[in-house]
This record gives sequence, C-alpha cells and structure tokens, in this order.
Amino acid sequence: MSMKAAVLYSGGKDSSFVAVMLKRLGLDVELFTANFGVYDSYVPASKSADALGFKHNVLKMDKSILEKTCEMILDDGFPNDGIKYIHKQTIEALADDHDIIADGTRRDDRTPKLDINQIKSLEDRKQVQYINLDSFGHKSVKLITENLFEISHEKSNKDNSSDFEVEIRTLIDEMGGNSLDIFPEHYQTRVIGYKQ
Amino acid sequence: MSMKAAVLYSGGKDSSFVAVMLKRLGLDVELFTANFGVYDSYVPASKSADALGFKHNVLKMDKSILEKTCEMILDDGFPNDGIKYIHKQTIEALADDHDIIADGTRRDDRTPKLDINQIKSLEDRKQVQYINLDSFGHKSVKLITENLFEISHEKSNKDNSSDFEVEIRTLIDEMGGNSLDIFPEHYQTRVIGYKQ
Repeated sequence: MSMKAAVLYSGGKDSSFVAVMLKRLGLDVELFTANFGVYDSYVPASKSADALGFKHNVLKMDKSILEKTCEMILDDGFPNDGIKYIHKQTIEALADDHDIIADGTRRDDRTPKLDINQIKSLEDRKQVQYINLDSFGHKSVKLITENLFEISHEKSNKDNSSDFEVEIRTLIDEMGGNSLDIFPEHYQTRVIGYKQ
Repeated sequence: MSMKAAVLYSGGKDSSFVAVMLKRLGLDVELFTANFGVYDSYVPASKSADALGFKHNVLKMDKSILEKTCEMILDDGFPNDGIKYIHKQTIEALADDHDIIADGTRRDDRTPKLDINQIKSLEDRKQVQYINLDSFGHKSVKLITENLFEISHEKSNKDNSSDFEVEIRTLIDEMGGNSLDIFPEHYQTRVIGYKQ
C-alpha cells in the first residue's frame, strides 16, 4: 500500500509538527501550500520546507474560492467562517490527488478544523485517509514543537507568512475593504529549522 | 519542562504505536502495564517493551477496581462498560504520578476511550497532559503499524496478552462466572519487534 502523505503546509509549527511526525513514522511526506493566484504567499512556507528537508509543492486553487471567502468575511465582519470555508475547500482539493492527506489542526483548535463527521464524510467520498494533530492538546504541541524546531517570531507581514490570511488580506484590500479591521496586527511564528 | 511521558502499555500495536511516535518526537518514554494482583498478565507486555527498547514498569492497581469491573460485566452480560471503567481508573492512576501520559486509543475506537470532556477534566484535575491516537483513523493505524512492527497473531490465551481482559477473565472464573460467555475465543496480536 502507498505510504505517500500530502501535508497541507504553512511553514508554521503545527503543520511542521504533523509533517515531521508522519516522516518519523515511516511515511513519504510531501508538503503542499495552497495558492489562489493573488499573491506569491507560498514563499515563506517553501523556505521552511527546505530548512526541514521536505519536498514542497504549490497547490493551485481556483481564485473564485478566495473571492467567496473574502465576501463571507466582509459580510460577517470577522474571519472565522471564511477561514473555515477556505480551509475545507483546500483539504477537499488536496484529497482529490492523494491517498493520505494531513493538516496541522490540533485537538484544542476551534477553527479552521474538520469535525469527526466532516472527516468521515471526506474519507468516504474521496477514498482518502485524513490525519491531523487531534492526538495532542495545546500544551503538548507547544512542548514538542519548541523541542523540535527553531522558530522565528516577527510582526506579521505579507512576506513572512504563508497562512490563508495573506491572500485574503490582499484581495480584501483590492476589493476596497480594509483588511486591518479584520485581521489586527499580530506576531507571526515560522519554523526556520530543526533545533540542534 | 519535563519531556517524560508515561504510556499505558499492553504490548499491542496501538500502544506500541503511540510509544514509538512520542519517542521519535523527542519525548523520554516509559511504558506502564496495569496489574491488579490476580495474574501476572504484564509479562507479554514487558517482552514487547524489551523488543522495542523501552523501559517497562508495572503499575500496581487496587484489586477492588478489578472486582468492581467484574461485577459490572457479570451484571451487564457484556464487557463494554466494565472495560471503560477499568481503563479510566488506570488512566487516572497513571496521571497521579506523571506530567505527560498517553494511551493507544484511536479516533475510530468506541470503547475504552476518553471523550473530549473527560480528557479536559482529567488534564485540569490532575495537571497532566494526555495524548492518544486521535490523529489517526483505523486505516492509517493499520498502515503505519504494519510498516513499523513485526506482529504475532495467536489464539488468545492467558499468557500471550496483557490486556485488561486477562485478569478480568481470571477473576470472573474465580467468582464462579464463565468468562468464555463474556469474551469468546479470538485472535490476539502482539508486537514482537521492529520490522527490518
């Protein structure tokens, strides 16, 4: 049976954690960062992937999904449901071309996260195995990732993050919205290598 | 912060999986098999632990817990609630002496398994981090464990398993019950080493 796993990857500590975990359990791991054609936001993730020794790919997604996401967020005035939508669409797309897929969502995350019914539906419809970080609470994720990784902490900007947020911000601003109302300034962590 | 993890261990593929996963993520793993003083059922688990290179310990549990378990099972006529009870009591005991504990319960298991509310209650009351195999569905567990481990398949008997079942059977038979009515004959898998 195939041991190839496709991990949805942002360069952050959670998606780096799941990638390293699966590799060390014997799977052939490749990383995928979604891109909607609005901004080359996958560059930071590709650098993190390189630093950790993984093959990195760009998962080209339809711009209409990003547009719908931005409309939802502007209507709602906050990002939760939009982020949930874009994450789910990306996972569905990743599942189309792979037998085993994974992301870095954690047991204690609220959003974006597939619940158990969404996971089982995805697995049945797409004949895929889905893996995440539900085994671990936030304290364990913190402990393990701080032990595994060198992590950079910087004020977030367009060029140090590969989260969905970067292209969402770009398109919201193009649409005449103000993305700073939706996503206040925050600090961004990114994995820059293994700890020695 | 301490990186010591205590894994509840039966010698089966699920608890072996969680032990190896945590070790490969950088934790200092020790294995613990519960014993209620009725039968030395920890011996198969200690052999599996040895074969995988882990330190193995016996977690001495109060016989009254096993007695209550057997009474529940004889009253119910089937083992589910009794097994759930004895597993939960064992996890609680393990949590008393450790900062990080783990077991091999999987996303698709029904019993014995702590639900998310029981996990959060345990973590809060005992100031412990709890880890299991909720990241993985049964297909992924099968794929990964078959790739990692040499596994023996034998008709189950008292001396090739360290599941709770062994001491439960022993005590039920001592109490004048017939354990074969409760636990029909089945095949037992046990991890006997790493795959080459």
